[in-house]
Amino acid sequence: LFRTRLIISILWVPIIVAIIAFGEPIHTLALVLLMVVVGVMEFNNMMVKRGIKPSEYVTITASIILLITIYLTGVHSDKGVILYILGFIFMLTVVWHLFRDGPRDFIGSSGATILCIFYVAWFFSHLVLIRNLEYGNRLLVVLFLIIWASDVAAYGVGRFLGKHKIAPSVSPKKSWEGALGGLLGGMWASVGSFYFFMGAERWPGLLWSLAIGSLVTVGGMFGDFIESAIKRDAQVKDSGTFLPGHGGLLDRFDSIMVAAPIFFYLMLLYKHPPSWLAGLLY
Amino acid sequence: LFRTRLIISILWVPIIVAIIAFGEPIHTLALVLLMVVVGVMEFNNMMVKRGIKPSEYVTITASIILLITIYLTGVHSDKGVILYILGFIFMLTVVWHLFRDGPRDFIGSSGATILCIFYVAWFFSHLVLIRNLEYGNRLLVVLFLIIWASDVAAYGVGRFLGKHKIAPSVSPKKSWEGALGGLLGGMWASVGSFYFFMGAERWPGLLWSLAIGSLVTVGGMFGDFIESAIKRDAQVKDSGTFLPGHGGLLDRFDSIMVAAPIFFYLMLLYKHPPSWLAGLLY
Repeated sequence: LFRTRLIISILWVPIIVAIIAFGEPIHTLALVLLMVVVGVMEFNNMMVKRGIKPSEYVTITASIILLITIYLTGVHSDKGVILYILGFIFMLTVVWHLFRDGPRDFIGSSGATILCIFYVAWFFSHLVLIRNLEYGNRLLVVLFLIIWASDVAAYGVGRFLGKHKIAPSVSPKKSWEGALGGLLGGMWASVGSFYFFMGAERWPGLLWSLAIGSLVTVGGMFGDFIESAIKRDAQVKDSGTFLPGHGGLLDRFDSIMVAAPIFFYLMLLYKHPPSWLAGLLY
Repeated sequence: LFRTRLIISILWVPIIVAIIAFGEPIHTLALVLLMVVVGVMEFNNMMVKRGIKPSEYVTITASIILLITIYLTGVHSDKGVILYILGFIFMLTVVWHLFRDGPRDFIGSSGATILCIFYVAWFFSHLVLIRNLEYGNRLLVVLFLIIWASDVAAYGVGRFLGKHKIAPSVSPKKSWEGALGGLLGGMWASVGSFYFFMGAERWPGLLWSLAIGSLVTVGGMFGDFIESAIKRDAQVKDSGTFLPGHGGLLDRFDSIMVAAPIFFYLMLLYKHPPSWLAGLLY
């Protein structure tokens, strides 16, 4: 099993990095669309095991529409298009479940459909938003490195020093010591990778890098716990069988998913600080 | 009971109409905020009867933040503020439920919290958006008249001619004949009230009035069915006891809630048609 894992990692990690780093933004969109469709199907399957039945049609269609809209208009659109789309998606959800389910589990299935669209498509869409920023390909690489370094550091520190469990009922292995190690690892990975990939003139500086690194790492840890909570609630071990030996796609990307919006909004804040913040900082 | 109903109607209908028609937009906001808080509490109580536990703190706080933001920025904001707020609300929801519930019913409660915020706050927020349009007070009166007229017409026609049930499992009394009567009633109420309240120079014309009237009426009927599905799923007769003899607030406003976004977006389309539509129409 370990060998399969290794071989598969050697195959897919470089492919993803190549698409992100050397492809155009639209290639990242295509990659994220693929990930979102797989993620939505995994989420739906987990729900079905829990006895809840979101609509696969609605979740997949809505996620694709949402991602393409966000790719085309960004979040600063003056047309408010995404809001119309979100409104339309919500209407579609309740009307669809009304026709499909009538009163039977109407609340549970509609809620799960909305949750799935937000959890998978909205979280993942920030990878596309980051890619659309200036030097977005490098920024995505920085994000992946922060998460990867904090994972490795948390695992290593937790393994050797871990004593105090954070939340055994959600994720039995995570310790506070490991989390602290992950936090420090993520912070210094942030400083290092920002400096290395953006260069001395364009990197956001030491303080911003540390701030981004620490908040993104904490977000990633929350992502891990949220995915664990979903899996425990659904009583499955893996979210799916996307990659042999790696569990499901949602397992693989649980930290990235939640870290991505935090990274994106912090980058926006750094690039366009509101006046009160700019006054405080500079 | 009928007398209580009548007396209460005589009291509260004029108050609501007065606030909307003669008050400033901020008075409508205050009214809608009150309705949303009551509606959210009713929704939460129904969920609890169904065995699902959304977070009352999160749903109420998020709904108030969402409404005030929508009041302040509208949907055409170039700052994307509502999107940040929606993202923040979603993050808050999953993190809150992670801390509160851990893996226990994580999916059901998070889904219900999101559903509640959308169902109550997002639907109702369009009343505020309509009020913020030019002549918004008159437009709101037009909307209420369309829904009221279509309700009365549907009830009357259904009572005397109703034979073919639409969906007995959701709402046992609704008939296709009644729906047709309601549709015609809503269409002509739309023409009449637009013309009467907006005047010959400012009303949207016969075709738009008929289109708005019919789509808004259909939306209102869907709202009725959706609320019925929720109540049947939760196995309650009324959504709450907001007004003696009138059931809950969500029962009272189920049609208006769903009709409001349709009315608002059709008014936007009429006032600012995209070029391809303008070319087709004029």
